[in-house]
Amino acid sequence: MEQHNAGRTPVTVIGLGLMGQALAGAFLRNGHPTTVWNRTAAKAEQLVKQGATLAGSVSDAVAASPLVVICVSDYDAVHGLLDPLGEVLDGRVLVNLTSGTSAQARETAEWAAGRGIDYLDGAILALPAGIDAGDEAVIYSGPRPTFERHEPTLRSLASGTMHLGDDPGLASLHDVAVLTMMWSILNGFLHGAALVGTAGVPATAFTPLVKMLIGTVTGWLDGYAQQIEEGTYPGFDSTLDTHVDAMEHVIHESESLGVNAELPRFVKALADRAVAAGQGGDGYTVLIEQFRKP
Amino acid sequence: MEQHNAGRTPVTVIGLGLMGQALAGAFLRNGHPTTVWNRTAAKAEQLVKQGATLAGSVSDAVAASPLVVICVSDYDAVHGLLDPLGEVLDGRVLVNLTSGTSAQARETAEWAAGRGIDYLDGAILALPAGIDAGDEAVIYSGPRPTFERHEPTLRSLASGTMHLGDDPGLASLHDVAVLTMMWSILNGFLHGAALVGTAGVPATAFTPLVKMLIGTVTGWLDGYAQQIEEGTYPGFDSTLDTHVDAMEHVIHESESLGVNAELPRFVKALADRAVAAGQGGDGYTVLIEQFRKP
Repeated sequence: MEQHNAGRTPVTVIGLGLMGQALAGAFLRNGHPTTVWNRTAAKAEQLVKQGATLAGSVSDAVAASPLVVICVSDYDAVHGLLDPLGEVLDGRVLVNLTSGTSAQARETAEWAAGRGIDYLDGAILALPAGIDAGDEAVIYSGPRPTFERHEPTLRSLASGTMHLGDDPGLASLHDVAVLTMMWSILNGFLHGAALVGTAGVPATAFTPLVKMLIGTVTGWLDGYAQQIEEGTYPGFDSTLDTHVDAMEHVIHESESLGVNAELPRFVKALADRAVAAGQGGDGYTVLIEQFRKP
Repeated sequence: MEQHNAGRTPVTVIGLGLMGQALAGAFLRNGHPTTVWNRTAAKAEQLVKQGATLAGSVSDAVAASPLVVICVSDYDAVHGLLDPLGEVLDGRVLVNLTSGTSAQARETAEWAAGRGIDYLDGAILALPAGIDAGDEAVIYSGPRPTFERHEPTLRSLASGTMHLGDDPGLASLHDVAVLTMMWSILNGFLHGAALVGTAGVPATAFTPLVKMLIGTVTGWLDGYAQQIEEGTYPGFDSTLDTHVDAMEHVIHESESLGVNAELPRFVKALADRAVAAGQGGDGYTVLIEQFRKP
């Protein structure tokens, strides 16, 4: 293995939950000398077999590498582990992949700046298996020069590696912003699968059409994003009134077939408010105004 | 133009709303001799300039072609136009692309069978502009031999041309089943755009990440469909409990940033019911049981 490691940045991974283990495994696969630490050392066993070094303390783990990745349960855990460390973190790069809010990310960036730590806040848009496969996305925010200096190392974690801006809160914010999309797609799929299931159509036979539809709708997003930016919502392709008619139809069909109609009812209630506000002749994107309201 | 039309099946399009016009335009572009009819003849003007023949009555329009496509406001309008026709429809193929329920589609198929009409029921999973571009989807159900005989003609309307089965209700059912997905994706996008907008990120800058996420989640669907079919919902990648924690986080972040939190709250309310039923250790697909309940 030695010859592969020549020149690869040594990294430390703190926190070996399912995701932390996947991260450390990805660094090892890509030839990075990898030091790991976890409160329960047993979780490091498999990684040590693959060539990782298990540190005896958080301080030793941090001291082992110029780049430290932390992925623990929450930001309180991050601070619980790192605040007591003293100067060992000074001058190192800390990449925090722990899930949290954009406010927590910004606070932690300030704390890091006060300690002379180069800080990147990141979010993993993948399941551990996605990190294992190397084909999903990890997003980062914080100083661009720091990101660029370490981008080759961070690319070991995911082919989809994006820097979103200097504001350290942007990664968490984007993470939250796409999570709702994830559940929306899954719920749309489950509702549809329940509907076609009433006619004996198996979910696997439904999936090709779903993928085609997802491709179609994805193709609309660039134009819709442009409308949102311009603040004009022309109903040239289809008006909100037309959508509401179709929603009524989907609710009716779901009810007739004995399938849960809550999702289309929710969708319609939101659109109804825009229609009541006189926006029925506008396009679907006019609903951004509803989503912006607390 | 004549030489291009050699051998192309003559078609009739009844109903020239935005979608009917797009359908007739697609047939004309693909060299089919095309007869059109609409209650308001003025809507045929542009098509006639492109080479369509405007029929003086529904009966004349039907008599002009072996294949008749109807796309009007609803199934009552279909029957209002076709029921009085008498024998002119006998032996022709009627392709009904009007939006309706699967029950209406099955009733109309029975009516057609009683009249000696070959009947296909279809649904258009596209906007009129998508038909103009030729790259979206039209789905059909009804006798497979009828579909196969006319598939080359129907492919003039959309590259994504699928036959879903002999049951004439399947096209309408699948249409309804993917509509909720369409709104779910759009709402997920709008909610996310509203969130990142609070940090001044424009919607167009958010879109690349959204597309990446959509691609990731789409990649999960085959496996999830398999789970639904097998009725086992292993939480090996992520448990519902973990999802609910993340939902709580998204709700909290949406509220903190002054963005509408209804969508993540809806998503969580549904998941909470499954957790309350003791399914928190299962994977996300266990929610199919919630969607199957009236």
